[in-house]
Amino acid sequence: MTHTTDVVGVGAAIVDILARVDDATIEGLGMPKGAMSLVDADQSKSIYGALKDTTERSGGSVANTIAALGALGSKTAFIGKRRDDQFGEIFAHDITTSGTKFPTPAATQGEETARCMVMVTPDAERTMATYLGVSGDLGPADVDAATVKDAGILYLEGYLWDKPDAKEAFRAAMKLAHEAGRRVALSLSDPFCVDRYRESFREIVAGDVDILFANEAELLSLYEMDDFDAAMDKVAGEVDIAAVTRSEKGAVIAYGSERHGIPAEAIDTLVDTTGAGDLFAAGFLFGMANEKSLDLCGAMGCMASSVVIQMLGARCGDELHAAFAKQGWV
Amino acid sequence: MTHTTDVVGVGAAIVDILARVDDATIEGLGMPKGAMSLVDADQSKSIYGALKDTTERSGGSVANTIAALGALGSKTAFIGKRRDDQFGEIFAHDITTSGTKFPTPAATQGEETARCMVMVTPDAERTMATYLGVSGDLGPADVDAATVKDAGILYLEGYLWDKPDAKEAFRAAMKLAHEAGRRVALSLSDPFCVDRYRESFREIVAGDVDILFANEAELLSLYEMDDFDAAMDKVAGEVDIAAVTRSEKGAVIAYGSERHGIPAEAIDTLVDTTGAGDLFAAGFLFGMANEKSLDLCGAMGCMASSVVIQMLGARCGDELHAAFAKQGWV
Repeated sequence: MTHTTDVVGVGAAIVDILARVDDATIEGLGMPKGAMSLVDADQSKSIYGALKDTTERSGGSVANTIAALGALGSKTAFIGKRRDDQFGEIFAHDITTSGTKFPTPAATQGEETARCMVMVTPDAERTMATYLGVSGDLGPADVDAATVKDAGILYLEGYLWDKPDAKEAFRAAMKLAHEAGRRVALSLSDPFCVDRYRESFREIVAGDVDILFANEAELLSLYEMDDFDAAMDKVAGEVDIAAVTRSEKGAVIAYGSERHGIPAEAIDTLVDTTGAGDLFAAGFLFGMANEKSLDLCGAMGCMASSVVIQMLGARCGDELHAAFAKQGWV
Repeated sequence: MTHTTDVVGVGAAIVDILARVDDATIEGLGMPKGAMSLVDADQSKSIYGALKDTTERSGGSVANTIAALGALGSKTAFIGKRRDDQFGEIFAHDITTSGTKFPTPAATQGEETARCMVMVTPDAERTMATYLGVSGDLGPADVDAATVKDAGILYLEGYLWDKPDAKEAFRAAMKLAHEAGRRVALSLSDPFCVDRYRESFREIVAGDVDILFANEAELLSLYEMDDFDAAMDKVAGEVDIAAVTRSEKGAVIAYGSERHGIPAEAIDTLVDTTGAGDLFAAGFLFGMANEKSLDLCGAMGCMASSVVIQMLGARCGDELHAAFAKQGWV
């Protein structure tokens, strides 16, 4: 079926507040290291007060993926809610200048635009505290039907499952996509997120998802299994394609009975793992949108991931395009 | 005379919007490369629209210097005007978490917090377009007298001379400082800025300034001279100490008939010259606040400058502290 948009993402419209911290700060704040925790406006202020020398960059898991796809030249669209404030302006600027259509209007009331405090420890691991703000108010009415129906792939994030309205928006988007004969891709996002919504995720993975992105911990958590190969077999029976990342061990792609092991790219200096999964998804979806083999899709994912972890933050359009151009991929 | 604050800065409260661009973009926007141009709200929007993958970090010339001094452990204060918006929140957060007192309340009306679009070309040069917003409304009433009188050194930037109210605020601050027996330091900021206000700058350099910071181009422009040594002799007759930077040639400090040549620090990779002058001033003033020799003050300036030009943006508290610790300076 023809389409003019390669991938439409539905997710949180977030600005990241990045700061380098030591491990003691993470412990002092009582945050689970390496994970994403949701915080309210008051907690957000108190964590922000503990950070120094911050850097602000657009973020949001699905939004990072979509902006990267846009930078690579894919035809992209994003649906997500921001306020008419300065963080909302930054977010909208950065996603639209990646070439992405962004039909969702800025909310003129409600909470502020979402912010995610990304605390990077000396081991380059990131620990995140997210204030979802108005982004969690995304509801079914915000899902622009024409945009979803027009896209070859609909891409969703597990993160927004924390909000009932957003969950309904996801369900509405999946229904629209499938009715139009499109494929649905989902990122499980975070092991704690999987813990909170395991039954619900299992249900949509089994019933609605065509392409699943997860890391090893998220996949094992989803099925409450210890054995990676057994979990891969399980997921392979439920989705068309599962792309599972394993940090420095690269990724494994499952397609029916096929298993494709993809080695990680060698890197010079690990700076900040923020966006590693988001960029893997971008590279992989770029391959799929261009009808490449699963091995090449996986290699593109690992390459994109290697670019973003060598810099601060999750937006790396220019560097990504340069790395792909060097391989002759764009 | 005793004081509990080492340096109080008066300047613009700005958030930088940093983006990598090619030379054609700078030409297309009609911007003088390497300089700072003032833009209005509409121009600001149109330039912003031409940038991709932006990074937001606190900025402001004097504010960068003061935040760096704070990170080194000096006792610092800052006076400058921001709005009660999200950019104002970022600015206030970053300056206060450097340990700096910031007595100026957020304005509840007027234009938005200042923003500076910092466009970094492949040669690592930065070209700036500044929307001063509410920061230019700084007036004499905003100059907290107790804060100024308590500080050993008052530090001002030429940039704000573009605004009549701010100019009066500077004059008020200089008067307070001198009445309290304090020293006044000024950065000439930018050659175009010197061009616009040459007579006025000459008058305060000759009459009010004790410590002058400038780069070679600004100094030559101030006196409309071609000969560097002659310009150094001229300025040495007017101020107590002149610290003049010459990019990769390091700096020359003039004190009466003394001339101290300071070599630049060797660097690995030049990333972005944003903040080079601001951080030179920080290192130099840190030396002065700790009663070091002029040679050491100059070396500290060159060291601080070398740290900031190897990263994106002008705030580098942690890296600066680490570099100074390595030298045994903190």
